Amino acid sequence: MEKRALLYEGKAKRVYGTDDENIVWLEYKDSATAFNGEKKADITGKGRLNNEITSLLFLKLQELGIQSHFVERISETEQLVKKVSIIPLEVVVRNVAAGSFSKRLGIKEGLPLSKPIVEFYYKDDALGDPLIIEAHIEELKLAEAEEVELLKKKALEVNGVLSKFFSALGIQLIDFKLEFGKDKNGEVLLADEISPDTCRLWDKNTNEKLDKDVFRRDLGNLTEAYENILTRLGGQQHV
Amino acid sequence: MEKRALLYEGKAKRVYGTDDENIVWLEYKDSATAFNGEKKADITGKGRLNNEITSLLFLKLQELGIQSHFVERISETEQLVKKVSIIPLEVVVRNVAAGSFSKRLGIKEGLPLSKPIVEFYYKDDALGDPLIIEAHIEELKLAEAEEVELLKKKALEVNGVLSKFFSALGIQLIDFKLEFGKDKNGEVLLADEISPDTCRLWDKNTNEKLDKDVFRRDLGNLTEAYENILTRLGGQQHV
Ligand SMILES: Nc1ncnc2c1ncn2[C@@H]1O[C@H](COP(=O)(O)OP(=O)(O)O)[C@@H](O)[C@H]1O
Ligand SMILES: Nc1ncnc2c1ncn2[C@@H]1O[C@H](COP(=O)(O)OP(=O)(O)O)[C@@H](O)[C@H]1O
Ligand SMILES: [Mg+2]
Ligand SMILES: [Mg+2]
Repeated sequence: MEKRALLYEGKAKRVYGTDDENIVWLEYKDSATAFNGEKKADITGKGRLNNEITSLLFLKLQELGIQSHFVERISETEQLVKKVSIIPLEVVVRNVAAGSFSKRLGIKEGLPLSKPIVEFYYKDDALGDPLIIEAHIEELKLAEAEEVELLKKKALEVNGVLSKFFSALGIQLIDFKLEFGKDKNGEVLLADEISPDTCRLWDKNTNEKLDKDVFRRDLGNLTEAYENILTRLGGQQHV
Repeated sequence: MEKRALLYEGKAKRVYGTDDENIVWLEYKDSATAFNGEKKADITGKGRLNNEITSLLFLKLQELGIQSHFVERISETEQLVKKVSIIPLEVVVRNVAAGSFSKRLGIKEGLPLSKPIVEFYYKDDALGDPLIIEAHIEELKLAEAEEVELLKKKALEVNGVLSKFFSALGIQLIDFKLEFGKDKNGEVLLADEISPDTCRLWDKNTNEKLDKDVFRRDLGNLTEAYENILTRLGGQQHV
């Protein structure tokens, strides 16, 4: 596979074309951002960790019957994925109140929800990725009503599988964000990344935060937290 | 009917008990507030105008088969209404993009929507009345799923009737906020007020704003705008 032109540079990854029009080359960067880019830092090792963790999680999901864009990890910081046209929605699943959810609704962080909640945010940096309702999605023509139902169903499936999987590793999956895209046949495919950048992961015994909140809230060493997750996933530790 | 103790003082009205336990006495105040109370002013005549306009609109709705808490207007600034337990939801119906909707979604103010949109906001001043989704309503136990459907249906009914009615008066109903409550039998009843404080009303020909945006955005004389609405509704002009 040959790496071609840079197609897009995001906050956490670079997307390159390849000699296969259906495959893109993702490069995970070391940059950390939070609060819609207001807080920024370069954290050596973060790209490698998220690339490894995402790869392991997409492989695990595949094993358990959930397809994604993931093709293969090709270096410490790079992976090949199926090219999709990203649906500009951040699909968030929550099991426990935390973050913006706690703030919005006045629910104490750490309170388990009666059942998992799926939320949609409009993926638009200029607007600050606002929470939106299904009528907004329709009005903006971001997705059809049936697609929205499909996204919810798929997101809840991922939640079921990942919650169990993380739990067995002593980790509570508090919430996470997914992105989906459409491949050339119009099929909806799980895409982007699943990493401590996009999940809230708490140690089941100590409630220690092992995710991007370490960066957002200055709670300690980010790469140590991410290495902890990677080790539990059975990934290679870096020395 | 006898006025009894003050039960609650809100931003725009005072609620008093009466000698009938099923009736409360609403007093419309002259205070104007915006941006969750950040901007405040006293505007002589506003209480009278909103009391009259709300009374005329609830009477009109009743005529057209839509029940509400309204019983009768008893003075320039006072009315009697059925006592309800307010459901802490602001039910917003939008026909045309404006205000927070335009900001949230990046849709130019004044753009008509493909169809009316109903939104729910959590009526909680401390939280800034955030937009919420139906799963939040369920989680917070603000209303049952079937009640949420009923609120949507009722809100769209009110929209149909009011849009037509205002249109005949040369006014475009851009959006509005409703509150509902439950009476002693648990029945859901349209409550609170319907006034230029809670509706966006634009002159059909000139697009002149005849609502609280005049105050929010310092566009001119608020009572003149509200008098304009009252006059078109056939209400008594003040001299
Ligand atoms: N399979 C894919 N095909 C095309 N684009 C993708 C794919 N997976 C993820 N992307 C997109 O890659 C971009 C880069 O990722 P990221 O750095 O996280 O961007 P952002 O700053 O927008 O979050 C994002 O716009 C993401 O949606
Ligand atoms: N029929 C009713 N019975 C009891 N309370 C009502 C009724 N109609 C409206 N209310 C409530 O009266 C209060 C006073 O109104 P307002 O000044 O607009 O308050 P707020 O500042 O909360 O918007 C509000 O909490 C409103 O929900
Ligand atoms: Mg991203
Ligand atoms: Mg009010």
